[in-house]
Order: sequence, then structure tokens, then C-alpha cells
Amino acid sequence: MARPYSIAVDLGGTHIRAALFSGQDATPLRYARGLTPHTPDQAPILEAVAHAIQDVLPPDTDLANLSIAVGTPGPVDPFLGIVLSAPNIPAWRGLPLRAWLLSRYAATIHIANDANLAALGEFIYGAGQGATDIVYLTLGTGIGGGVITGGRLLLGSRGLGAELGHVTVDPRGPRCGCGRSGHLEALASGPAIAREARARLAAGAPSSLSQQYRSDPLLVTSERIADAARQGDAFSQALVADVATVLARFIADCLAVFSPQRVILGGGVLGLGDLLLAPIREGVVNHAMAAVYLEQLTICAAQLGDDAGLMGGLALCLNPALQPGSAVS
Amino acid sequence: MARPYSIAVDLGGTHIRAALFSGQDATPLRYARGLTPHTPDQAPILEAVAHAIQDVLPPDTDLANLSIAVGTPGPVDPFLGIVLSAPNIPAWRGLPLRAWLLSRYAATIHIANDANLAALGEFIYGAGQGATDIVYLTLGTGIGGGVITGGRLLLGSRGLGAELGHVTVDPRGPRCGCGRSGHLEALASGPAIAREARARLAAGAPSSLSQQYRSDPLLVTSERIADAARQGDAFSQALVADVATVLARFIADCLAVFSPQRVILGGGVLGLGDLLLAPIREGVVNHAMAAVYLEQLTICAAQLGDDAGLMGGLALCLNPALQPGSAVS
Repeated sequence: MARPYSIAVDLGGTHIRAALFSGQDATPLRYARGLTPHTPDQAPILEAVAHAIQDVLPPDTDLANLSIAVGTPGPVDPFLGIVLSAPNIPAWRGLPLRAWLLSRYAATIHIANDANLAALGEFIYGAGQGATDIVYLTLGTGIGGGVITGGRLLLGSRGLGAELGHVTVDPRGPRCGCGRSGHLEALASGPAIAREARARLAAGAPSSLSQQYRSDPLLVTSERIADAARQGDAFSQALVADVATVLARFIADCLAVFSPQRVILGGGVLGLGDLLLAPIREGVVNHAMAAVYLEQLTICAAQLGDDAGLMGGLALCLNPALQPGSAVS
Repeated sequence: MARPYSIAVDLGGTHIRAALFSGQDATPLRYARGLTPHTPDQAPILEAVAHAIQDVLPPDTDLANLSIAVGTPGPVDPFLGIVLSAPNIPAWRGLPLRAWLLSRYAATIHIANDANLAALGEFIYGAGQGATDIVYLTLGTGIGGGVITGGRLLLGSRGLGAELGHVTVDPRGPRCGCGRSGHLEALASGPAIAREARARLAAGAPSSLSQQYRSDPLLVTSERIADAARQGDAFSQALVADVATVLARFIADCLAVFSPQRVILGGGVLGLGDLLLAPIREGVVNHAMAAVYLEQLTICAAQLGDDAGLMGGLALCLNPALQPGSAVS
């Protein structure tokens, strides 16, 4: 039998990336990257995914020996292989990704939520190696989550679980992108941090960011706040401390719910590094319901960066059992 | 081979109950009940558990053919079979229940958190039959939780997961029994409801409970509030509506996290019946992050009452795979 090939695809709002792997080897043989078409029709999106796959697929591949895993943002039904919806991209609603790919490739096809795949990637190849129970959070434009419980991905009945960004952390909190309010994403994502900074600057709080704010409020981004905090701006440091408090309380709640050994934090906001991680670790100790939850716990930064999803795709191709009940053609 | 026997034991703060089952039959052959000794020593507690088991154990039982499952409140390590601590009962701290029982009975012994067992009971024999993903909440003196995900009990790395009563629902909320604040248990348990009623009555709010409150504030219990609400007391109805709002928001969060088909509510507070369930169902629709989470969802009352834990013990004895990684002698 030929060595099996795995292709991991990361279908994002801006880019489509694909990586080809051979056997158990975690170093990609080939890598391709393209732009995600923004059209009201589904066909160009599906064609673009096929194009990315074609770019890395070796000629004369025995398709019976090929697995493909595609990760996409938003609610995905991994059992049916359908993208149920995607934030801000109407064309993706009901995208029958798996059925369409199966019509092109007589391979084994997996479809998964991108944050779930990233959690799986960290679990097998990154900061989660050796653990059995992991909570993964990616703090970026939105907040995605992935949970490994007892060595398996937590999916829920329709595969829509682990949407940790959409848990209420403050019932009086600001409106979330999903339309509800007080969710973690509305308080600790990059845009949420920037929005809160602008509100405080508008109220006249002094900061090294004040001048940028006055010339254009949109210049105040979470990246600039991070830079200012690192350079000693007390305003930015206080804001980061407040975000750390929100995250620490949420992570303490996750301990009671998931009893994990690792809490792994990724995404652009983690550019703050220890400026964010140190007060989070301190806050979790203060908020945990019992000391026993802290005994075997590590809270750490993700290791795989933007490749976490592709690595999770490889993990899923090599071991579908990580995703219980997953439909395998 | 003889028909296997299962003994389920519910070790509670007040009573110890034991039930004997034969084979797959869910009707107990024998049933015993005794008082839980309140002593500073562990030995009398262990002896009382053994006594309850002895009371239902048929003479000449082949112990190799016997499984025993013991459920206890508070954090329990089901892998090691140790009660890590129990609220308000110092003697239970570090109680080596499984090792001690193994020294008495060369049987298969399971130790589990009581709410987890109750969730398992409802899953196999009660309101959760036919589902694969369940969130179970018991609203009583405290709030316990149990989660079935992909057909298995969510335990976490040390078996301390699904402590849903100790999730923060309002960072400014009242102090919880565990010492932290704003937890679900501090807002929606029986004592929390009674405490809030007393605070509102102390502030002069008019109610049919006012006279009882003036003669002795402790007469205002969650049961009396339920009675008053049923009889049309607007004060009590408003209080129940507020509790329903807290629960609805929490359940909406559970949908995003667990994507369950069933949310099952048990415990004394459910004596309120539809007075509580109807506004919860309405509130969950308003708070769910997306309609897709509601499509295959049922929110309902538990069916097994006080026997849920014993039935869960039977389920665990008959199918240890429900509890992944569970140590089996």
C-alpha cells in the first residue's frame, strides 16, 4: 500500500491555505495559499478550495489513500460536512463543503470548525502534547474555542460546541458581534479591547495614545495598545489588566467545567505575551473555586501560531477517532 | 456465569441509600437507607457505607460478578476513587472510598460525583433517553451539574469537571458557598432564592410572605416562595422570573459550549414546575447566540427525582465505558 497522503485546508475569510503531508510526517511536503473569493455565489468558493487542493495534490495520487480536512470559521456541522453560517459572509451559509468535495475527490473528507482544528493541532503537535484535557482559546478579531475532553474533541450533538467566545461573562457587558451581549468576545477580542480604549480616551483619560486617537480614533488598535503598554503607558497597562481579569475569571470557570490540565491561549491578542499571561495566571489562582483545580494546571501560550489549524487538519486525517462520530466516507 | 449484580450507593450529607439490581433490570431487588454518621473520623463513614452495601448484598454473592458504584457530593476523583473534599464535612476530605471498599469487597468499584451520576441516570433511564449530548442541572441546596458529550460523561483530567453551579454568571453577584462570588449557585439555588427574597422583604417590598418574614425571616424558604408564586403573589412571581432569567442566560451559554439536544433540570427548585420552566424556555430563545442551537433542543424537567443518582450508579456498573478512563479493578 502506498504511503497515505493528508491535505489540510484552512478556509479563512481572507485566505485559503493548503498543506500536503505524507504519512505521519508533520512537516508539509507542499504548501499553497490563495485569496478567498468574495462573491454572493457558493461555486467560486468551492472552486477556490478545490484549486488549493489541486495545487498541493501530487499527480497520480491514489485517492483511496488520501484524506482531506477543511477548517472554516463559524458554526460548522462536522457530521454533515456543512458550513451552517459564517460571520459576515452570507454566501457560506449552508455551504455543502463535504458533499461537493466528495463529488470531486473519492477521498476521506473531514470538515471542522477552525478553532476546533487549531485546538486539535496544539493537542497533538503543540502546547497540548501529553495532556488529555485541554481548553484552547484563540483571541483575535473574534474569540474561538476548542476543548479536548478525555482525549477527544468536544463537539456536541451537531458539532457546534466549544464556542467559548460566546459565553456570557458579564450580563451588563457590551454588545457582541453575534448580536447578544456580554459575551467573552465582546470584552476580550482585539476589536473589543480597541473599542474600550477609544471609549476611555473619548472620556479624556490621559495616555500616550491620546494624540493618535485625536488624529484618527481607528489608529487605536489592540496592537498599538500592546506596544504602548510595553513602553510603560499606564492607561494601556490598566486596560490590559482589566482584560486579564475578565480572562482569568472565565478561565477559572473553565476549570470548574472542564477540569483541564492545560489552558492554551493563542491569537493576535497573545502578542501581549507575559504582559497578559502573568496577570491571567495570578487571577485564575484567585478565582478558582478550589485549589485542587490548580494542582496539575498549566496556562500557556499556543505554540503553532497560524499553522495550528493546518496541523489540526493533519491530526484529524491521521486519527479520525479524535473527532467522535465524525462521518468518514 | 451467574447473573451480575450491581449495587448503587448514594452517600449524601444526611442519608446513605443503597439499591441492589440484577442484570439489566432497572427495578431494584432490594433497597436500604440509613443515616450518614457525622463524626470527625472517616472510619464510621466508611463502615456506614459498607453497612448499606451489606444490607442489600445477597448472601453467597460471587464478588467477581458484583459491581458497586458510589456517588457522593463535592469534588470526587473517579480515577483514584477518592472524595477530595465535601462542602461542610471536613471528615470526608481525602476519603479513600474506593481503596477501602476494595479491601472489603473484591468487586468492581466505581466512585463518582453524585450530580454526574444523576446525569448518567437521566441519560440512560430518564429524560435523556435517546440523546447523545445532555446538560443536566440539579437545583437544590446547591447546584450540581453533569454533562454527557458524545454519549460519554464529561469528567476532565481529574474527574472534577461539570461543576456547573460554580460558573460565574454575574461578576458583581453575591458570595457563593464555595467562597467565590457571582456563581450560578449563589443566584439560583434554593437558599440563594430565599436569601434574595429576604433581602427584598427587608427593603419593604409588599408580599403575601411579609407576615411570615416579620415573625421569622427563616420561614421564607424557596418552597414557600414557590407556593406564594403559585397563589398569585406578584412579589414571588417577580423573583421567580428573575431566577428564570439567570438560568435562561446560563443555559444559552451551555448551548454554545456543549451543543446539547437536551437540557434537563432537576432538584427541589424544580418544584416550581412550569412557573420556572416556561420563562426559562422563552429566555433561552432570546439569549441563544444562533437559532441553529435551538433546532433540536428540548429543555425539560428531570424524570427520576431522588433516584437519579442510584439509577446512574446502575448505568455505570452496567457500562463503565460511559465514564471514559474510569479505573476498573
